[in-house]
Amino acid sequence: MTDAEDSRLQRRETQFAGNSSDLSNNSKYIVTPWEVKGNIDYDKLISEFGVSKIDEALQKRIVKHTGELHHFIRRNIFFAHRDLNFILDEYEKGNKFFLYTGRAPSGPVHIGHLVPWMFTKWLQDKFDVELWFQFPDEEKFLFKEELDLKDTEKYLYENMLDVIALGFDPEKTHFIIDTKHAGLMYKEAIKVAKRITFSTVKAAFGFGNDQNIGAIFYTAMQAVPAFLPSVLRGKKMPCLIPHAIDQDPHFRVSRDVIPKLGYYKPASIQCRFLPGLGGMAEDGKMSSSSGETATIFTTDDPKTVKKKINKYAFSGGQPTVEEHRKLGGNPDIDVSYQWLTFFEEDDAKLVDIYNKYKSGEMLSGELKAILIEKLNSFLETHQKKREEAKKRVDEFIYSG
Amino acid sequence: MTDAEDSRLQRRETQFAGNSSDLSNNSKYIVTPWEVKGNIDYDKLISEFGVSKIDEALQKRIVKHTGELHHFIRRNIFFAHRDLNFILDEYEKGNKFFLYTGRAPSGPVHIGHLVPWMFTKWLQDKFDVELWFQFPDEEKFLFKEELDLKDTEKYLYENMLDVIALGFDPEKTHFIIDTKHAGLMYKEAIKVAKRITFSTVKAAFGFGNDQNIGAIFYTAMQAVPAFLPSVLRGKKMPCLIPHAIDQDPHFRVSRDVIPKLGYYKPASIQCRFLPGLGGMAEDGKMSSSSGETATIFTTDDPKTVKKKINKYAFSGGQPTVEEHRKLGGNPDIDVSYQWLTFFEEDDAKLVDIYNKYKSGEMLSGELKAILIEKLNSFLETHQKKREEAKKRVDEFIYSG
Repeated sequence: MTDAEDSRLQRRETQFAGNSSDLSNNSKYIVTPWEVKGNIDYDKLISEFGVSKIDEALQKRIVKHTGELHHFIRRNIFFAHRDLNFILDEYEKGNKFFLYTGRAPSGPVHIGHLVPWMFTKWLQDKFDVELWFQFPDEEKFLFKEELDLKDTEKYLYENMLDVIALGFDPEKTHFIIDTKHAGLMYKEAIKVAKRITFSTVKAAFGFGNDQNIGAIFYTAMQAVPAFLPSVLRGKKMPCLIPHAIDQDPHFRVSRDVIPKLGYYKPASIQCRFLPGLGGMAEDGKMSSSSGETATIFTTDDPKTVKKKINKYAFSGGQPTVEEHRKLGGNPDIDVSYQWLTFFEEDDAKLVDIYNKYKSGEMLSGELKAILIEKLNSFLETHQKKREEAKKRVDEFIYSG
Repeated sequence: MTDAEDSRLQRRETQFAGNSSDLSNNSKYIVTPWEVKGNIDYDKLISEFGVSKIDEALQKRIVKHTGELHHFIRRNIFFAHRDLNFILDEYEKGNKFFLYTGRAPSGPVHIGHLVPWMFTKWLQDKFDVELWFQFPDEEKFLFKEELDLKDTEKYLYENMLDVIALGFDPEKTHFIIDTKHAGLMYKEAIKVAKRITFSTVKAAFGFGNDQNIGAIFYTAMQAVPAFLPSVLRGKKMPCLIPHAIDQDPHFRVSRDVIPKLGYYKPASIQCRFLPGLGGMAEDGKMSSSSGETATIFTTDDPKTVKKKINKYAFSGGQPTVEEHRKLGGNPDIDVSYQWLTFFEEDDAKLVDIYNKYKSGEMLSGELKAILIEKLNSFLETHQKKREEAKKRVDEFIYSG
């Protein structure tokens, strides 16, 4: 990290921490598209970001169409939204939405990245809708001094394999790659950009005058897929964006602009972060940039997964077996348990694990073994599909 | 003009006038890519912009290759340059340069716009080199609140006809249109943009925080054609940019960046402005936005040209014929005479007109008649070629 970058980050921290929390020791956290840190208070985030909670009424409305609720919704992993009722209103009138989500290639995909995409796949299946998946391959290049376009190109390919492996319907899924599809996108991006001032991005993202002009412009490119399908199809289509909550500042800005261009204001549905292995208090989301050991990558082999979980997953258990049997573990801070809330779909099983761990009947090692088994089983399938995806990349890249 | 635009312009004025002149009543002038105003002191501009004068030694060096000197150089209409000696060094070693110039479509082409392009055509012929002609069709859209992309699209087509009409070699001339060629350009533009901060464009162009993020990014797009041919041909090629002096701030910024990307620092050669019909003191360059009457468009018919020159061309003559015969006219402030320095190629004829007008032998009406005849003869040919150009646009648009 350069000094300039460092000072930018500091400014961002100051700004966002200042805006968003009371700075008391335990509640300090930062959530921006470039940085997520600290023990995030999601309830607070709802009011700070101005998103709405997914309440019981809305859950019921969703289940009317989907038949069942994804466990990510049941467990408040997808916890907030903007204008989801509008999307359902239109859907009920026969006006189908399209989905838009994305991935900025800058490294290998880890298991936390998959969360919003798995949910997006579920939405695609349940509502039978198109997905526009953006790979803004310039974003991280513009925001990370040391990253060059050869790196992002390599990761672009690798990351596409992970997305395809999740089983999206190639007939209904279109990959949009910024540097490749700029011929379609730039003309739309300038329409957005004309209506966003430096003051606006300064406030939304905490930029200083030392920010580069590509990074300043970038949010306009991220806005484009929210209305590009309407441009290409020649009709106004509602857009629903499933995304991790840190991306909200981009859409907060673009939601103000897109209706002025004659399209629907995009709706969104937001998820929490899968906590890092080191624990939630230290790390808001799993970060692939803080060293290989701290994360599980989609390409990790079973032995590596086992080693990482056993070695790094923060435990809510007691120091000795005796104490654990007596006092029980604390699943609420135990990372292995928290990860199971993301990856164990069966509520009954999860409750059973919770109770057994809390009572001391289940030891930390046993809990970890359940998670390891779950992850390795998931990854075995994922890696097989990821290999198969190598032959299918072209089916997914939008070609008009 | 919106209030925000107005305040932006005022800030720019303050900044540039402050930087560039002593603000005493008659010498106040502004030269930016978006505004040219006042009685420009070109000698002062040379030191302020940091360009070099085209001196006798350089003129001799040019003539060695061209056989003759274009009257735009003989008359210091092309008066300044950056690194032209480097271009000739490389040329003499057999390393040919390419030419790059452009036009931001925002209205019809007037006769002043043709000046740098006519010179560019001469350079293409004499040095037998390729020309990359950029049509940044987003630039004026981003800088002018009221302009939409339908307007720029219309003018793009009209403006291309004027460029083609000048007789460029289609085998060696490639039109690059920003919204159309963004698929090639954006990936290169972000490399430039990553190395330019908001502070830099703020200083170079006088932007405030209320500037839109598309306009802030734009200079990166204008940098691209200065090295795009090197990217496309896979070899490092010198670039020479003939342009009106107001565009220099763009290239001042990009000359710092392009060598860091591994390409030659682009060289440039700069011209003065054809004065507006109303006179030089009021109007630094001919502006097509200050009303139809003030300019000669390339599509004006002979009667319109005659009417405009007779009615609006600022005269250096005396109020009455008697006084004129006695005191003589002042060709140095007479717009018709000044225009002839651009359009009458024959030095002997021009000197003769100068002397006869200055002595009072030639009346203002006679001087105007010479200009009218000259322009109408030029425009007759231009308009014929402009019609023919309609069938040839596709030959010029770069298609890989």
